[in-house]
Amino acid sequence: MGKVRRSVVIDGLQYCNYSEAIFRDLRAGGVDAIHVTIAYHEDFRETVANIVRWNGLFAAHTDLIFHARAGEDVRRAAAEGRIAVFFGLQNCSPIEDDIGLVEVCHALGVRFMQLSYNNQSLLASGCYERVDAGITRMGREVIAEMNRLGMVIDMSHSGPRSTLEAIELSSRPIAVTHANPHRWHPVVRNKPDDVLKALAGTGGMLGFSLYPHHLKDGSACTLAEFCAMVARTAELTGVGNLGLGSDLCQNQPDAVVQWMRRGSWTKEPADPGNPVVFPPQPDWFRSNRDFPTIAEGLGKVGFAKAEVDAIMGGNWLRFFDLSFSTQEPGK
Amino acid sequence: MGKVRRSVVIDGLQYCNYSEAIFRDLRAGGVDAIHVTIAYHEDFRETVANIVRWNGLFAAHTDLIFHARAGEDVRRAAAEGRIAVFFGLQNCSPIEDDIGLVEVCHALGVRFMQLSYNNQSLLASGCYERVDAGITRMGREVIAEMNRLGMVIDMSHSGPRSTLEAIELSSRPIAVTHANPHRWHPVVRNKPDDVLKALAGTGGMLGFSLYPHHLKDGSACTLAEFCAMVARTAELTGVGNLGLGSDLCQNQPDAVVQWMRRGSWTKEPADPGNPVVFPPQPDWFRSNRDFPTIAEGLGKVGFAKAEVDAIMGGNWLRFFDLSFSTQEPGK
Repeated sequence: MGKVRRSVVIDGLQYCNYSEAIFRDLRAGGVDAIHVTIAYHEDFRETVANIVRWNGLFAAHTDLIFHARAGEDVRRAAAEGRIAVFFGLQNCSPIEDDIGLVEVCHALGVRFMQLSYNNQSLLASGCYERVDAGITRMGREVIAEMNRLGMVIDMSHSGPRSTLEAIELSSRPIAVTHANPHRWHPVVRNKPDDVLKALAGTGGMLGFSLYPHHLKDGSACTLAEFCAMVARTAELTGVGNLGLGSDLCQNQPDAVVQWMRRGSWTKEPADPGNPVVFPPQPDWFRSNRDFPTIAEGLGKVGFAKAEVDAIMGGNWLRFFDLSFSTQEPGK
Repeated sequence: MGKVRRSVVIDGLQYCNYSEAIFRDLRAGGVDAIHVTIAYHEDFRETVANIVRWNGLFAAHTDLIFHARAGEDVRRAAAEGRIAVFFGLQNCSPIEDDIGLVEVCHALGVRFMQLSYNNQSLLASGCYERVDAGITRMGREVIAEMNRLGMVIDMSHSGPRSTLEAIELSSRPIAVTHANPHRWHPVVRNKPDDVLKALAGTGGMLGFSLYPHHLKDGSACTLAEFCAMVARTAELTGVGNLGLGSDLCQNQPDAVVQWMRRGSWTKEPADPGNPVVFPPQPDWFRSNRDFPTIAEGLGKVGFAKAEVDAIMGGNWLRFFDLSFSTQEPGK
């Protein structure tokens, strides 16, 4: 790759069952950096066990991947032809009830944390709760601590009131790493216009999801329809705060989606009477090889080359540069 | 302090009950860096809780201390008039039975680990065991992992055979951070000449202990006698691999020394019939303010200024520079 300057491609969230084949897909798709989920429902000790497993992947595949901690690592990945892997938590369960674990997780390389995952957490309400009570007392403290350290607040699975309050309380821009506009496809995981405007208005990022349940017409959603939705969102928010967060869960067994939904908080089936399975991906986005297809689609709905580059990764990179810088206390 | 180049003072091990008063003692004693114990018998999760407590101290006393990870941090501390604090483990209990936790502890800033503490561990024999069986199968793996990461192997509380094998197996110089020559004061915690020669012969460091049980005549040991012992050791090993490792346990309650001895491995009292208490320090080394007294004493037994500087910290700094550099796999 040498020192050739080119635009970068970044996926703002994915949770594949990683293997050499998937890392090669990422390279084939021209992806320079990914934000991967290292915990959904795990406590701290279980999260550390997941990090140990990731360290094993890093050691086994040094030619393809490395553990990334800063925006600069994305440029390094692009220059070296490798993939920068950023760690994130989809829930606050790894910090348990101990604010001190935020700094510990940061030291272990965690760069994103969702304040809640579907349900009420110690910090915020989830998007499936009956009442969204906003950010809790501990939530306010944890937001300040994440701001201090340079860990991104991700509200993808939180409720609208919690998300608006997080935007307000956070001294740094926040992210919704993987969701779509609610107006386009009205499910609780997608975000209403007021949330999208407040998010972008404070420099925060939206990563468009390619998970079929977040797409209009689900698995049958067309590339043109998806890209037209991106264009309409850009009219609402501007292009500068939009990116991708594919939510790709390639090669995961269906037991994983059942566990995502149910964790250990219920004994009931996720959807009584219906087996919970991963939906098939749209035929134009089946794997990490398909990122160029999206770039092409964005061009076809009228985005200029520079705008396509920004949405494919440039915006995330600018956000990473800002978000992962540290502020040492007392300095 | 500015940019004035001066020699540095480093304590190779201590375990005080830290507070602002003790940090001020350290500055008053001209100490630039300390290796502090963050675990004796703790498992991984308990060790992380101790790190969280230390992070609280760092946040509360940024003007006095900071968490150090590299030799360069000692120079930074000297330039800023602060104290560089290096984390170490006196036992391998924090890594439990999981070699992956070595890298996790390293990421959390741990820079020293003893392979055993008095008793047999999963890695090596302790100095109080009846049989010293040497380095175990897992011990060999962990030594290689510590070498890879840049974590110092400390054999202060291990048996002589285990120590000699660790010196042989390690690709980097190792340390005995706090002990004295067995010939001077024959207790099992002090090290025989063959161990001292093998240690120094491979570039490893000995930190002379000021804990009364490691001193000839205990609490009544004189400064002159201590410094004469240092001089005799230098005749055996050369000056270049000698430093201090005071083992200072200032302001710790006696319950702590009882716990150090007994952990949770026995229900019996540490010394039946005798209450186990911290012995009084010699009157010439009662606190971190007394480091200049030792430098003076070393001068009086004939060490040149440059040699005194080396023993007071210069040798540790050279060792830190070498020991904490990383070797990335596959590079």
